[in-house]
Amino acid sequence: MNTDAKKTALRMIPYGLYILTADDGKGNVSAATVNWVTQTAFAPPLVAVAVKTDAHGYGIIKSSGHFALNMLGKDHKGLAFTFFKPTEVKDGKLSGSPYHKGTTGAPLLDDAPAAVECRVTKIVEEGDHHVIVGEVVEAHLNKPPTGRPDTAILELKDLGDNVFYGG
Amino acid sequence: MNTDAKKTALRMIPYGLYILTADDGKGNVSAATVNWVTQTAFAPPLVAVAVKTDAHGYGIIKSSGHFALNMLGKDHKGLAFTFFKPTEVKDGKLSGSPYHKGTTGAPLLDDAPAAVECRVTKIVEEGDHHVIVGEVVEAHLNKPPTGRPDTAILELKDLGDNVFYGG
Repeated sequence: MNTDAKKTALRMIPYGLYILTADDGKGNVSAATVNWVTQTAFAPPLVAVAVKTDAHGYGIIKSSGHFALNMLGKDHKGLAFTFFKPTEVKDGKLSGSPYHKGTTGAPLLDDAPAAVECRVTKIVEEGDHHVIVGEVVEAHLNKPPTGRPDTAILELKDLGDNVFYGG
Repeated sequence: MNTDAKKTALRMIPYGLYILTADDGKGNVSAATVNWVTQTAFAPPLVAVAVKTDAHGYGIIKSSGHFALNMLGKDHKGLAFTFFKPTEVKDGKLSGSPYHKGTTGAPLLDDAPAAVECRVTKIVEEGDHHVIVGEVVEAHLNKPPTGRPDTAILELKDLGDNVFYGG
């Protein structure tokens, strides 16, 4: 295989940016910026997110059985970079961001324009990231987008000319 | 659950457009426009694509064990709409588009700027679309993008203000 062609072809896939959160109810809370996300079904509404197996959040999602995807807005570049780093839970904030618990227990960032809470239905344990499939069981719209919703989300390409996660 | 919030939140996920192709080697060839695609691992390079279970291509992918994702370029709006309809195989073309077989047997559209050929490693049979996970085993770059690769791909939002597949 031509690995340069593989890298470029896979980097053609466009990505939004999300803060993936989880709370196991035992004091372990995680929040991390992710981009490998897609819807996978309408009925029931399913999404898939690929998570690095050695990520702090991976075990928390697995044990809690729930997660939230917090959509980032175009003005949330700082949040995206903050949650590339390990999460600090302090003063009731996640790395400085106020949040509250959703109905599933998953943390919802107050600043996120929208979020979905999901119940894990399947984990595909293949590769260095596993595919976590979740059913959307709750949804929140804090700041309804004007115009197409997919033009309101922060995208990977918005982070800089040389920022990629894929390929 | 607030279903309007669910619809809008899920429609914030941005999508590229791909022609998903497969050939079972027994005369059954399929090509369909899809958008629910993400990479899911670096090592090995895995991608996931969600496919409607009653789609013509679903059974062909399942029986052949291979598929190709043909990336569309910004000038391929016509191809995206063509492959929303059932594929017509005639005169060695797929609905009028010239193609050739890849090393896995999956059809590669001559006009696609890039494509990856995948070997199916897992199918998650949940919901009205199933998640097909495939390992990228071959990649082709017919027209290397200038600038970021993810700005060269045709996106769902490019098809029109009211064209959505998600929510």
